[in-house]
Amino acid sequence: MKCVAVVLTWFRSKKVTEAVLEPGREEGVDKGEAEDFIRLYHAENPAAGPAKPRLREVFAEISQTGTYTHTPGELAFGAQVAWRNSSRCIGRLYWKSLRVRDRRHVDTADGVAEECIEHLRVATNKGKIRPTITVFAPDRPGQPAPVIWNDQLIRYAGYRRPDGRVIGDPANVELTASARRLGWRGKGTRFDVLPLVVEAKGVPTMRRLPREVVLEVFLRHPTLPWFAELGLRWHAVPVISNMCLEIGGIRYPCAPFNGWYMGTEIGARNLADADRYDQLPVVARGMGLDMSHDRTLWRDQALVELNVAVLHSFAEDNVTITDHHTEARRFMTHLEKEERNGRVCPADWSWIVPPLSGATTPVFHRYYDDVEMTPAFTRRRRE
Amino acid sequence: MKCVAVVLTWFRSKKVTEAVLEPGREEGVDKGEAEDFIRLYHAENPAAGPAKPRLREVFAEISQTGTYTHTPGELAFGAQVAWRNSSRCIGRLYWKSLRVRDRRHVDTADGVAEECIEHLRVATNKGKIRPTITVFAPDRPGQPAPVIWNDQLIRYAGYRRPDGRVIGDPANVELTASARRLGWRGKGTRFDVLPLVVEAKGVPTMRRLPREVVLEVFLRHPTLPWFAELGLRWHAVPVISNMCLEIGGIRYPCAPFNGWYMGTEIGARNLADADRYDQLPVVARGMGLDMSHDRTLWRDQALVELNVAVLHSFAEDNVTITDHHTEARRFMTHLEKEERNGRVCPADWSWIVPPLSGATTPVFHRYYDDVEMTPAFTRRRRE
Repeated sequence: MKCVAVVLTWFRSKKVTEAVLEPGREEGVDKGEAEDFIRLYHAENPAAGPAKPRLREVFAEISQTGTYTHTPGELAFGAQVAWRNSSRCIGRLYWKSLRVRDRRHVDTADGVAEECIEHLRVATNKGKIRPTITVFAPDRPGQPAPVIWNDQLIRYAGYRRPDGRVIGDPANVELTASARRLGWRGKGTRFDVLPLVVEAKGVPTMRRLPREVVLEVFLRHPTLPWFAELGLRWHAVPVISNMCLEIGGIRYPCAPFNGWYMGTEIGARNLADADRYDQLPVVARGMGLDMSHDRTLWRDQALVELNVAVLHSFAEDNVTITDHHTEARRFMTHLEKEERNGRVCPADWSWIVPPLSGATTPVFHRYYDDVEMTPAFTRRRRE
Repeated sequence: MKCVAVVLTWFRSKKVTEAVLEPGREEGVDKGEAEDFIRLYHAENPAAGPAKPRLREVFAEISQTGTYTHTPGELAFGAQVAWRNSSRCIGRLYWKSLRVRDRRHVDTADGVAEECIEHLRVATNKGKIRPTITVFAPDRPGQPAPVIWNDQLIRYAGYRRPDGRVIGDPANVELTASARRLGWRGKGTRFDVLPLVVEAKGVPTMRRLPREVVLEVFLRHPTLPWFAELGLRWHAVPVISNMCLEIGGIRYPCAPFNGWYMGTEIGARNLADADRYDQLPVVARGMGLDMSHDRTLWRDQALVELNVAVLHSFAEDNVTITDHHTEARRFMTHLEKEERNGRVCPADWSWIVPPLSGATTPVFHRYYDDVEMTPAFTRRRRE
């Protein structure tokens, strides 16, 4: 595996400025937050014994060092519960199955990049995707943790042309420009996989992903043969890498995690949104639809076929994916299970309801509590 | 026009109990609410002159009688602003065009029924639908206003059969049972128009709608000839009749109002919801879709074609309707206009985003302020 790391200390972009504004906490960990979490851990894990002795340890460590260290069991539970508490995620039925890769000893850019590559290998699992999180070093007083600039480990480049149009994914124009400043050169296609950019101690480092860890699915349609010629594809595993895992007052800003895709994320957003790949007019033209007026619902027809293609292609390639009907039903099961366990299940209606055929799914027809609970995945730039 | 009014004083159903719990206010109108409204009216209608003299009048009337009387101008403005403030309505661009039929002198069941029939005639306008509200007598201290039991003036009956299945619209099973108790007998088809049930002074009265004021559209599909044989239809005008118009502390619990349909209300809810007409499996079978698994997206495909049929049939019959793409764009225009006028536009994301292809409409990609503002249409049973 060749490491193409470029270190630029002169680098001055918006990204770096933002990163500079995200220091590790100077003040120590909040003992109240630590206590809440430790009590939760012991309440839900009776085998761990009473909380008190562990609380004494934790408080002593905080008093001495300003922070404390999660046991491997606490870390795993904290990460799983952070998923359980993700009010925007429809796929939480399997929160307990999250594999936690404890890499807290890794705090260099090279080390993080290496382990991210290994994460992709383990999580992709040749298509049988495993929900996985890799947890790197946390923020410590005076010692900010490394961060990953990419919002997902696998992102397609977006190249802005002089006429303003974008080749590739318009969502990643900024990241693409940053990667180029760090020396990366893409081929200029619509689906160039961007390198990872990992920042450690204020310095961004660029690292290419080896081809073999980026599983992609080439899209075709079960009944429209011309569809394959559109040359559309998407990567198999969505690994979110720009959120901060917060557990009991400890912040892990570098903790990439993945589930598997629900088809609509690709077919009704990434490839369909007018400010992303904007493929509805292309698909509609292929289908020969009447695009003269909105009321012919050509957008809606093209959207469904694009989503059919996504689900069909993933299934045929044996890559894990779910459709929004199945996933919505699973979420209802999850809600019931959580209620049975006496827990509130926080949920954000506008994220839980799929962007396609919303009202045909059971999640549409009710409201939810949307409360903030911890452990949690939070936006890294919130503080 | 034959009047079939049946008066039952012994009537004791859930509906009546609820109605009994909705008394006219015993206490007087809140002067603060009255003042806020009068000031708003004068601020937005400079031609009406300064607010002060009118405020003196209003306060004096409240002190004497416990309530006050809106001028026709205030009533019209109040009703229009109640529409403007309806955070769940996507169709507010035309709020100023609402026609206000001032029928505050009408407070008998027969009078209300007669004017509701006239409302349908005026609003339907042979298909060129006019947004219209008819405002009946308000609540007065010790004198509750009449109310309409139907949640829309035109509703299809739902007959529950002994095996639990429903013929017609399951949403109206209760109202159908009430109408039957009042002596109504339907033909037993899936689309029997229910009579109006108007309650005045605690007594419910039933009144059939003359056939000629109920414009209906028979659904067919532009390219699927078998679709017409499904025998689906829907009425042209949605006249909401179970909400309370509140203006400046005065409550008008009987104030039916209408805009025109957005296609998805019929095609993606009324005819599609599993607990309404549940036609997706029927349409999918007609289309010969593979219904063996959710991931074939047969529901999504059938849903689009059902909505195509709705829009096509209304358009061909010259009955006003809009599609969700057009209406979403209009709503964005409305938002901009409101902002330009320095006003907050309250909006509820989960209602504004259409139930079909949500993310393909511009309203999906932002959040809204959802504040309660008055004048307003409120749920009648809230107090």
